Amino acid sequence: MFEGIARELKQVDRTIERAVEADEETLSSVADYVVSSGGKRVRPALVLLAFLAANGEKIRHVIPAAAAIEGIHTATLIHDDISDHSEKRRGKPSAHVSFGVARSLIAADYLMTAAFKLVGDYGVEALRTINTACMSMAIGEIQDLRRSADTRITEEEYLEIVERKTGALFEAGVRLGVMLAGAEPKQVRSFGAYGRHVGTAFQIVDDVLDVSRDAKALGKPVGKDLREGKVTVTSIYALQHLQGAERKHLVEVLTNSKRTPSTPDVSRAMESVRSTGAEAYGRALAKAYAERAKRALKGVPKSKALLELTHFADDVVERRS
Amino acid sequence: MFEGIARELKQVDRTIERAVEADEETLSSVADYVVSSGGKRVRPALVLLAFLAANGEKIRHVIPAAAAIEGIHTATLIHDDISDHSEKRRGKPSAHVSFGVARSLIAADYLMTAAFKLVGDYGVEALRTINTACMSMAIGEIQDLRRSADTRITEEEYLEIVERKTGALFEAGVRLGVMLAGAEPKQVRSFGAYGRHVGTAFQIVDDVLDVSRDAKALGKPVGKDLREGKVTVTSIYALQHLQGAERKHLVEVLTNSKRTPSTPDVSRAMESVRSTGAEAYGRALAKAYAERAKRALKGVPKSKALLELTHFADDVVERRS
Repeated sequence: MFEGIARELKQVDRTIERAVEADEETLSSVADYVVSSGGKRVRPALVLLAFLAANGEKIRHVIPAAAAIEGIHTATLIHDDISDHSEKRRGKPSAHVSFGVARSLIAADYLMTAAFKLVGDYGVEALRTINTACMSMAIGEIQDLRRSADTRITEEEYLEIVERKTGALFEAGVRLGVMLAGAEPKQVRSFGAYGRHVGTAFQIVDDVLDVSRDAKALGKPVGKDLREGKVTVTSIYALQHLQGAERKHLVEVLTNSKRTPSTPDVSRAMESVRSTGAEAYGRALAKAYAERAKRALKGVPKSKALLELTHFADDVVERRS
Repeated sequence: MFEGIARELKQVDRTIERAVEADEETLSSVADYVVSSGGKRVRPALVLLAFLAANGEKIRHVIPAAAAIEGIHTATLIHDDISDHSEKRRGKPSAHVSFGVARSLIAADYLMTAAFKLVGDYGVEALRTINTACMSMAIGEIQDLRRSADTRITEEEYLEIVERKTGALFEAGVRLGVMLAGAEPKQVRSFGAYGRHVGTAFQIVDDVLDVSRDAKALGKPVGKDLREGKVTVTSIYALQHLQGAERKHLVEVLTNSKRTPSTPDVSRAMESVRSTGAEAYGRALAKAYAERAKRALKGVPKSKALLELTHFADDVVERRS
C-alpha cells in the first residue's frame, strides 16, 4: 500500500522522531518505541495523498502535518492500552508494560504537544482543524466507554460514536492536507467527508476482524472486544439475529462487568456472532461507507493521487489483518 | 489572596467550565470535578496580574488564557494522580478513583485540547509559548521520575528539574498575560523570569510542607514524597547532613522500590529530615528564588497589580498549607 509515497512516509517517520527528540533520553525512547510499533501509517498517507489530489505542489510542506496526525493517533494508542490494560500492541509489549504507566503518560503528552506544535506552525486555521478532531475523539471515546457494555445500543448510535472516535481524525488529516494545498472551502469539505467515511469504514472492518477466523489464522489476536465487553457492529447485528440460549450467553459475556469471561466463553460467543453472518454484514456496511467516501470525491479532477485515495477506500473494505 | 481580581478569577472558572462543556455529560462531569477540586487558582491569578501590571487594558481579553493555563495544570494533576496511585486530591477522592482511569485520561485529553484551543485563538505566538511550556514540563516530569529515587542527585540538578516541571508553566502563563497586554519582548522576558522563579519557589515550599509538622497539624497529608521515594530539596539537604544509622535509614526509605515503606518508617525518616533543619533551609532557598522573581520586575512601572505580584512572591515563601 502507498508505494507512490513510500519515500515521503519515511520522511513523516523522521519528522516524528525529530519532534520527540528531547534532551531526555527516556522520553524519546518511549515515544520512538510507540511510534515504531505503530503500524501502517494509514493516517499520514491520506494526508499526503489528499494534498497531492488537491493539486498541492511541494509535498515537503505537508509532511509535518502528516507527522502530527500520526503523533496524535499514537498518543491515543498509549492511553487506550493503559485504559484497557492491554499488555500487547502489534505483538510487542505495550508502552506501559515496557516503561510503566507514568513514563507512558508523559510520553503521550509529549507526543500530543509536539503534534500541536507542528500544526500550530501552519497557523490558527490548521490548529482549529486538529482541535476539533481531538475534542470529537474525546467525546467519542467517552461515549464508547459509557455505552460499550450496553447491549441495547442501536447500530445508528454505535456508528455515530465510530465517526467521532475514528472518523474525526481521518477527516482532520485529509482536511489539513487539502487546506495546505490551498484548496477552496468546498473542496476541503468534500475531502473531509471522504476522510470521515473512510475512517468509519476502517473502524467497522477492525470490529469485523475481531471476530474473524481468517484474522486468527493470520496470527492476529481476536475476541478482544468480546472479552472486554465492548459491543460493536458485529455483536449489535448478532444480538438482533440470535435467539434463546445463544443470545443469552452473548449478552452475559458482554455485560459481565465483574470478571473477564473465560476463553471458552469468548470462543462460544464469537462462534454465535459468526453464525449470524455478522462478518458479511459488517463488510457490507463498511462497503457502504467506502462508497460514500468515494462519492464525496466525485468532482475532484482525476489524478494518480485521487486514484490511490479511491483504491484505499476499496482496500479498507477488503482488509484481512 | 488575589482579592483584587476575585471577580475575574470566577470568570476564569466559568470559562473552563464552558470550554469543557460537551454534549457528553460524563466528560463535563469529570472535567468539572477535577477543576473544582483544583485549588487556589494561583496560575491564572498570575496571568491576570501580569496582564494588568504590563498595562493591559481589557482584562476580559486575557481570561481565556488564564483558563487555559489552569486547564493544562488540571490535566497534569489527573495524570500525576494516576501515575502516583494517589487516592486523594485535596481531601476528595482523585478523579481516577471516582470515575476510573479510562474516563479520567480522556477528560485530561479534553482539558488539554480545550486549553490549546483557547490559546490558539490568540494566534501562533501564544500557542508557541504554551507549547514550549508543555514540552518543558514533560521533560521535567520524566527527569523527575528517572532521578526521584536517586539519592545522589545534587540540589542543582533537582532545582533544574523543578524549573522545568513547575517553573515552566508559571513562566508561560505570566508571559502570555504580558504578551496579550502588548508588551515589548524585553518586558515579556522579565515577567517570564518572574514567573519561572516564583513557580520554582512555590514548588520548593511544597516540598518543605511535605515534611512539615505544621502542615500536618493543619490536616494536610504529609510524608507523601518520602513514602513514594521521591528525593526533594529537603531530603537532599538531610542526606548531606545526616550520618550513621539515621542517614542509612533515610536512604533505605527513599530507595526501597520493592515495597511502600511503613508509616513508622516514614515518620522516622521525616523526623530525621526535620532534625537537620531542612525545613528552614528549604524556606531560605525558596526565599532566594522569590527575591530573584521580584528583582526581575525591577524596571516595571509601579502599579497595584505589580504590588500584588511582589506580595505573592513573599506569600509563597511563607505559605503554610
